[in-house]
Amino acid sequence: MSRPNDAEAGLPGSAAAPVDLSSVLIVGTGLIGTSVGLALRARGVRVYLADHSTAASTLAQELGAGLAQQPKGEPDLVIVATPPEAIAGVLIPLQQLYVNATFSDLASIKSQPQRDLELAGGDASRFVGGHPLAGRERSGAGAARADLFEGRPWVLTPSTSSTAVALGRARQAALLCGAQVVTMTPTRHDQAVALVSHVPQLMATLTAARLESADQDLVDLSGQGIRDVTRVAASDPGLWTQILVANAPFVLEVLEGIAADLDAAMAALTAVGPTSTDDGAGLGRHHDESMDRLVEPVTRLLQRGNAGQGRIPGKHGTAHATYTNVPVVVPDSPGELARLLLACGDAGINVEDVSIEHSLGQPVGLVEIAVRPPAAEPLAQALRQRGWSVHF
Amino acid sequence: MSRPNDAEAGLPGSAAAPVDLSSVLIVGTGLIGTSVGLALRARGVRVYLADHSTAASTLAQELGAGLAQQPKGEPDLVIVATPPEAIAGVLIPLQQLYVNATFSDLASIKSQPQRDLELAGGDASRFVGGHPLAGRERSGAGAARADLFEGRPWVLTPSTSSTAVALGRARQAALLCGAQVVTMTPTRHDQAVALVSHVPQLMATLTAARLESADQDLVDLSGQGIRDVTRVAASDPGLWTQILVANAPFVLEVLEGIAADLDAAMAALTAVGPTSTDDGAGLGRHHDESMDRLVEPVTRLLQRGNAGQGRIPGKHGTAHATYTNVPVVVPDSPGELARLLLACGDAGINVEDVSIEHSLGQPVGLVEIAVRPPAAEPLAQALRQRGWSVHF
Repeated sequence: MSRPNDAEAGLPGSAAAPVDLSSVLIVGTGLIGTSVGLALRARGVRVYLADHSTAASTLAQELGAGLAQQPKGEPDLVIVATPPEAIAGVLIPLQQLYVNATFSDLASIKSQPQRDLELAGGDASRFVGGHPLAGRERSGAGAARADLFEGRPWVLTPSTSSTAVALGRARQAALLCGAQVVTMTPTRHDQAVALVSHVPQLMATLTAARLESADQDLVDLSGQGIRDVTRVAASDPGLWTQILVANAPFVLEVLEGIAADLDAAMAALTAVGPTSTDDGAGLGRHHDESMDRLVEPVTRLLQRGNAGQGRIPGKHGTAHATYTNVPVVVPDSPGELARLLLACGDAGINVEDVSIEHSLGQPVGLVEIAVRPPAAEPLAQALRQRGWSVHF
Repeated sequence: MSRPNDAEAGLPGSAAAPVDLSSVLIVGTGLIGTSVGLALRARGVRVYLADHSTAASTLAQELGAGLAQQPKGEPDLVIVATPPEAIAGVLIPLQQLYVNATFSDLASIKSQPQRDLELAGGDASRFVGGHPLAGRERSGAGAARADLFEGRPWVLTPSTSSTAVALGRARQAALLCGAQVVTMTPTRHDQAVALVSHVPQLMATLTAARLESADQDLVDLSGQGIRDVTRVAASDPGLWTQILVANAPFVLEVLEGIAADLDAAMAALTAVGPTSTDDGAGLGRHHDESMDRLVEPVTRLLQRGNAGQGRIPGKHGTAHATYTNVPVVVPDSPGELARLLLACGDAGINVEDVSIEHSLGQPVGLVEIAVRPPAAEPLAQALRQRGWSVHF
């Protein structure tokens, strides 16, 4: 099993040194804070919960995430799970109250809280920023899960001031939650999420925004491609404005590259595209060599897109997983999908993913069963023997 | 069951009039052409196959898509299933050979083949362009499926010259393939696919191209969001260059709107974002009202993205399907998923979709079972009773 980042190995205070993390205070009991509470409690850590809303911290307590009360004595670690803007304001008074505790946070941007803390005179030696890369479409304590962080990257962003003890405690919390710890500077983190999260969000939004006032007959031809491209465009505008503004410099850096590529593609399409006055070039246009040169920027861009897409790690966090899909036609009724997957289990084959495609107004659906490539042919044979309509 | 477009109802030669479609010639035996052959053969149509590669048409014949030989007598319909550039060149000599036959095509752009045909002196009265909105990641006859078009929109683009007989035959072929016929002009079709297919492709490509030469530690933080946004960036650069060039005017129209939105977002982020010299504004910046006004274009864009995304039809082609996800933790071993779905079937609940999330190096996976909202709570209860770890 490869790790997203192997920086872990060389850090001070790694596995060899025992880290005492017997009590943790979590401030902010939304989805992420409550999920951390659930995960730490499951590993035997005493967890205390606080929220500006007492109702929220009480709910989190009822869900089993910890005790909604003042810690008895000083906690080892205080995790501030508020929106990024509020972190320093919450953290600094608590640093005055708990003079030995380590402090961390869970926000999706890391430079701004670090800078806020330092500018407001907080103790940066006892702070290590954190960002677990996990989330759900839903929000609030009710959607929290103890397993939310299992196997996910959890970025820790120690500053040059952070002590080894502080880093050790923050890392211990992440490890107890089942996460894979990745360590980078706050700046490097923000550069990474601009590229792999914030700009993709904006690209989905820009694409979806074109549909806002488009005629219905045009929108009706939407298929799976645009559904995938725009899925994250359903995200919360208020939260995302905060994130994009806080990470504006790195977001802009990536967007400048995109704007340049977009300009080049538009210029090439303008140069070669047929126009309403292009009444004689029709057939001859296609095989012109000078045209090939004109469209080269478009082809090259599409090739670069191929290459970039191929670098994205697969679901297992290993190199790009290439599963093979075995398509099976299945009646669209209760129990049929189970019967199919039972047959896969009988054949001793582990299903890596399943996608279901319903046919409009048809009594059957197409199920694509993703398996590791060597398992595809045996699976197809096993299913055919059992009478399934396999299209492989 | 709603249709993507109800233009169908008022067309000449609709269901009432019997349409004779006993013999069809398909020219071009790639994925789409061969799939049409398989579908029509299954409905009793005599299908003849041709390809510039004899090996390809022979393979399609072996797969059961029809006979790789000259039609006996004149076919009712000739379907040209070549790349868009080649359509008119293939079609016109065949119009001279078959003087009563109707002609159609299957290309994903419609104005260019229509224009090519008219400019080269073809008989437009016997031509009705077609575009089945279906495809696969794989290509070639080997990936063909008789059910590829079931329930999918199949756009027909009759010109003002097209006869009712020609339209009736083209529609009959689409209906026999199980598709839902949508009728629009070639121009309107190209406008639609620019918006819902060609520009989303380019947006995915632009996003993925940023990863091409990015440092590995940045790319390693990629999650499900960027995976979805960039999935279609894996498409074939040569084919997509052809498509984008042929549909350049409508693609450019959409891209101009995107470029304007992107410019506005970049200007707003430039105006409000922290910079390296922004050493005193940290804490105070957040709650400034003038800042709210500056970021308003970003928030508004994200809101428009919400609205546009919400208009995309769901998998069933009905209004945006809003399923409820029931998350269940499942051991990552053969047969467990089947056992889970069997339990869903036992509970009499139809599973609309399934997504599986593996945890890195963990012996469990999280399965999200999508069901119609009223079924979610009963399903959660039924699964808990059977001992499943339901997180709903």
